[in-house]
Amino acid sequence: MPGKTHPLIAALGFAWLLAGAPSPAGASNHWSEARIPGTSETALVLGRDLDGDGDPDEITIRLEVIEVREEVYPGEFVTFWVFAPEGRGMVSVARVPSPTIRVEEGDRVRIILNNTHYFPHTIHPHGTIHPNAMDGVPDITQAAVKPGEFFAYEFIAKNPGTHFYHCHVQPDVHILMGLVGMLVIEPNRPNNIFTHLVPGAGRMPDLAKAAVEDGYDREYSLVYMDIDARLNRIPAAYKDPREIEKRMHRDYDSTQRRPNIFLLNGRSFPFTLRDTPIEVKAGERVKLRVLNAGARPMKLHTHGHHPTLTHLDGYAVPPGMRYTRDVFDLGAAQRIDLDLRPGNDDKYASGPGVWIMHDHTEQTVTNKGISPGGDITAIVYEGFMGDDGLPKVATSLERFFDPEYYRGNVPVFDPAIFNTTRAEYEYGWPEEEPEGGNFTYPVRDAK
Amino acid sequence: MPGKTHPLIAALGFAWLLAGAPSPAGASNHWSEARIPGTSETALVLGRDLDGDGDPDEITIRLEVIEVREEVYPGEFVTFWVFAPEGRGMVSVARVPSPTIRVEEGDRVRIILNNTHYFPHTIHPHGTIHPNAMDGVPDITQAAVKPGEFFAYEFIAKNPGTHFYHCHVQPDVHILMGLVGMLVIEPNRPNNIFTHLVPGAGRMPDLAKAAVEDGYDREYSLVYMDIDARLNRIPAAYKDPREIEKRMHRDYDSTQRRPNIFLLNGRSFPFTLRDTPIEVKAGERVKLRVLNAGARPMKLHTHGHHPTLTHLDGYAVPPGMRYTRDVFDLGAAQRIDLDLRPGNDDKYASGPGVWIMHDHTEQTVTNKGISPGGDITAIVYEGFMGDDGLPKVATSLERFFDPEYYRGNVPVFDPAIFNTTRAEYEYGWPEEEPEGGNFTYPVRDAK
Amino acid sequence: MPGKTHPLIAALGFAWLLAGAPSPAGASNHWSEARIPGTSETALVLGRDLDGDGDPDEITIRLEVIEVREEVYPGEFVTFWVFAPEGRGMVSVARVPSPTIRVEEGDRVRIILNNTHYFPHTIHPHGTIHPNAMDGVPDITQAAVKPGEFFAYEFIAKNPGTHFYHCHVQPDVHILMGLVGMLVIEPNRPNNIFTHLVPGAGRMPDLAKAAVEDGYDREYSLVYMDIDARLNRIPAAYKDPREIEKRMHRDYDSTQRRPNIFLLNGRSFPFTLRDTPIEVKAGERVKLRVLNAGARPMKLHTHGHHPTLTHLDGYAVPPGMRYTRDVFDLGAAQRIDLDLRPGNDDKYASGPGVWIMHDHTEQTVTNKGISPGGDITAIVYEGFMGDDGLPKVATSLERFFDPEYYRGNVPVFDPAIFNTTRAEYEYGWPEEEPEGGNFTYPVRDAK
Repeated sequence: MPGKTHPLIAALGFAWLLAGAPSPAGASNHWSEARIPGTSETALVLGRDLDGDGDPDEITIRLEVIEVREEVYPGEFVTFWVFAPEGRGMVSVARVPSPTIRVEEGDRVRIILNNTHYFPHTIHPHGTIHPNAMDGVPDITQAAVKPGEFFAYEFIAKNPGTHFYHCHVQPDVHILMGLVGMLVIEPNRPNNIFTHLVPGAGRMPDLAKAAVEDGYDREYSLVYMDIDARLNRIPAAYKDPREIEKRMHRDYDSTQRRPNIFLLNGRSFPFTLRDTPIEVKAGERVKLRVLNAGARPMKLHTHGHHPTLTHLDGYAVPPGMRYTRDVFDLGAAQRIDLDLRPGNDDKYASGPGVWIMHDHTEQTVTNKGISPGGDITAIVYEGFMGDDGLPKVATSLERFFDPEYYRGNVPVFDPAIFNTTRAEYEYGWPEEEPEGGNFTYPVRDAK
Repeated sequence: MPGKTHPLIAALGFAWLLAGAPSPAGASNHWSEARIPGTSETALVLGRDLDGDGDPDEITIRLEVIEVREEVYPGEFVTFWVFAPEGRGMVSVARVPSPTIRVEEGDRVRIILNNTHYFPHTIHPHGTIHPNAMDGVPDITQAAVKPGEFFAYEFIAKNPGTHFYHCHVQPDVHILMGLVGMLVIEPNRPNNIFTHLVPGAGRMPDLAKAAVEDGYDREYSLVYMDIDARLNRIPAAYKDPREIEKRMHRDYDSTQRRPNIFLLNGRSFPFTLRDTPIEVKAGERVKLRVLNAGARPMKLHTHGHHPTLTHLDGYAVPPGMRYTRDVFDLGAAQRIDLDLRPGNDDKYASGPGVWIMHDHTEQTVTNKGISPGGDITAIVYEGFMGDDGLPKVATSLERFFDPEYYRGNVPVFDPAIFNTTRAEYEYGWPEEEPEGGNFTYPVRDAK
Repeated sequence: MPGKTHPLIAALGFAWLLAGAPSPAGASNHWSEARIPGTSETALVLGRDLDGDGDPDEITIRLEVIEVREEVYPGEFVTFWVFAPEGRGMVSVARVPSPTIRVEEGDRVRIILNNTHYFPHTIHPHGTIHPNAMDGVPDITQAAVKPGEFFAYEFIAKNPGTHFYHCHVQPDVHILMGLVGMLVIEPNRPNNIFTHLVPGAGRMPDLAKAAVEDGYDREYSLVYMDIDARLNRIPAAYKDPREIEKRMHRDYDSTQRRPNIFLLNGRSFPFTLRDTPIEVKAGERVKLRVLNAGARPMKLHTHGHHPTLTHLDGYAVPPGMRYTRDVFDLGAAQRIDLDLRPGNDDKYASGPGVWIMHDHTEQTVTNKGISPGGDITAIVYEGFMGDDGLPKVATSLERFFDPEYYRGNVPVFDPAIFNTTRAEYEYGWPEEEPEGGNFTYPVRDAK
């Protein structure tokens, strides 16, 4: 339902929300959920308990569209566009990826997109059952939401599972610019109290009832993205939105893109270890909800651990095909749920320690071609997280926090192995033609 | 069985066809099948009913190799090579992809390749059980069929399912040039009357008995291709076949290809909506046979719908692994059969409307990098197809039918959002250095 | 367990190996295994029978790191780095891929990496259950093993299946340079006598007990790799390891790599047919262990045959999902086990002959863009292997053994079809502008 007036006022027109019920604002007083710092009072509104089972069934979320600039690994600042919970006053609250949204089966969900950006956008709820008019495809199911306008995506949450939401305007650019987030529908249970709006992704602050019933102790949302840094530079480099439109949507050829930055929950290694590790205890069961929000097929590898596949795109796999392996396929927009069983056994887990986890496509564990980087994070057992907020490792991670390392200005090996020092490293190479004659290879774009 | 004489005469030599039976030409009088306009009387010959169950069991198809030039989206004309049903007189009947061939389990199939092209070719029946000599691999199982020669691929159809046929000469070029088609073997049933030769792919004009038994109401064949337009330009640009051979088979490096045109049944959006929509009714069950005839992994997404996988490469998946999801994997040459259940429920379908369907790899839903394009089509419910032959949409598709749009000469957004007009759009931009200094990105090849 | 002294001496420190038992060297006298020619006496040491079931349960393997240069197809010499069994004296024994290592469930495995190379390396046992300290991830679980040092990877083999080992130092380069091999854990069985160290991969010289129990008659290990020849040229072209470090690890941008050589067991077609064919007999069952040691998703196609998937990444798939198809997915680092049933039936096999087998991604069946090439090999039935060590084919493979063919200097088709001769081939082409104006396409790098 589109509009040009303020979303709050427009909301009064949603007849099904008002029939014989207190106002959403009033109803929300019954429920407590920690507000994300900096967000407005209406960024998340929890309404009535419609089925009388002790939890809110009317969920209203207000999102803005914000351009942010984040340091994804030491020295690399990337411009993103994200959906952000409505900010307070002139303040905006934005991070990449867009917030994880969690609702319950049967909930009346309203996601109000307030387009505060200079380009049109929509929200496509990917994987959910919803009316055609709520599908978010510009021109096909609605007009794109212009700058300054808003649109309310309303649907009753039906099919529980791990889903996805993203902009569907010029998706070859807008999805890759960061307008992506995870959308989870939890099975309906009495007194199903959980956090509905989680900034970014990562460890969920609480478990919904069904996850507890299924025997899980923790839950992580993992959102993977791949970025062509050249695309993301455009909106930061030019001022006139017409020029940005021409460069991003007409000149830039997405069919020729080759991503060079690989993100987990908005970070690349080594920041992933600090900002989005997977902390576990032996004997626990950990639910991993994984979303490939990028545009290339991922092959997700868990060192020392063999999770079991439980869901594909939100749907439980038939019991006869819950298979266990160590490299999982995850194509663009696909979601898998994995059952990770930390511990020490002969099949699922190798015992305590720090076990890295990453896409096994080798070039993706680099930062613009310099290794180690990309979406590497670690499964960190209890007792293996250090006081400095980083996993305890065999040597030191210090040099990976030096921006010069990823600028290619630091030898990747200890110069002592070549009987030299870093200061002396660059001297004395023979200036010779390569054997067999000159040849070219893809050289890192250092910018 | 190779030869240089006319296929009709050569056919008389196939002993097993003649033993104690009327000639194929005579037998074909018992069966009626609408001839594809422009094809010869012998393009398709239906022979005897060998098992006496009321349908023809001798199927002879004659194919030529034709170079065609088709407008795949507004303003983009692409040269293809296709297998075409034998034409009448000097006329050829050709379209991309090559025709869908449907036969029945137990049929004696003869596909006669009459090489009317300037390069050698073969036909590899991919996925079928067939004698080694019929495998169509040049040098290994046969000599490639030279220009002016022919070869009869003879086999008894054994394993029912969705299969594939394609040229196996220089396959990195010939497959990608369009020498691909779907080959379906239907399970043997009495009185199994269906159309054997369907131009291109798309909606099947009729259902075989097994599809009816399985509860299907409609059936679609979906053939996906990805094209590097630079390769397809070569045969149109040069006249001497030796020069074309050198450029396509020795200079052009297919290992470095990056496709920039993405086709469903030979069309890109918006022509897909007109030429190959998926029309459905709520409550029906629709069988989708899907073939990835390109060279990259596809991730097929159905908006608002969650089909169930029933077959992989023609073989029924075990009952315990018929899974339901919304993004399906489909690698090069793979086939999947999907059970699509239009309607309005909590699991399989979201209700009536126009729901797009496409590879979710973002760059593939563009035409040479301009969005929307590529292999997007739509699941169109009854009542949602307009009188103009296009689905009824929220706004208008008109601007996507303007070739200037895909030439990059039209702003992708309404200029009014930038407080300007299309006529004034290009004026007044600041001529400034980009912030942070100049940088490059892959720019669209407008040709 | 790292060290700088000689591995043999250091081995004496492994307490659990020595407790109440003869020395490994002594115990190994009980077992006979053909030594790989040129390897040292300690390259493979088979120790005590710990569970008293008639086979060795202490397996010690010593590997060096060697730079080799191999002709992968006619005229193409590629530089690789491999793990090689410890050589004798100054001699090294190296081939690509690194040797297949086979151990038994319950074995005490020690793989001693003796770094004889100029760069640091490690070994990551991929897919096995092992202590965190044995995971081989530099900085995280150990310091990288410097030139001249060694490290012993010790673990008890737990989870039977097809696994993988590779260097984890700068993996975007070291894995692609060839530091990869297959690692098989066989289920524990009495008197389980089989070869533990097999050079490269290919046909296994013997079957372990479990494979016999499962009804197999032969077993093949298939290791696929994809190579960017430009990367592999660097270490051969420069002399100073500092310059090699800078070029390979800092300048070369692996995110922009596009491989142009595709290998099965270290060879490309046509050498694959000679060096690594899959020889079978009708009626047999053949176990294929397949590893994608490259960095791109493979789609493995068996002509005329439909294998059944039995294992994913070493783990048996649930019985209800043992599916049969003809194109199998295999992402980076994934392993699949396939049950191939040569013969002549209506489902699994099409009968005797020479049936090619290859990744169906079309560009991968070329050698730098010239077809046929890449990872094509053949399933060759009994009686179809010729005296020249090549499969009996319909015409001749001779021209593919001419290096000029893959240099692009030989027409791929018989010049006679253009009414000319090879000598006259290049004359008389029109020197004209291409129709529609000039355009570019990716041109083969002939070097």
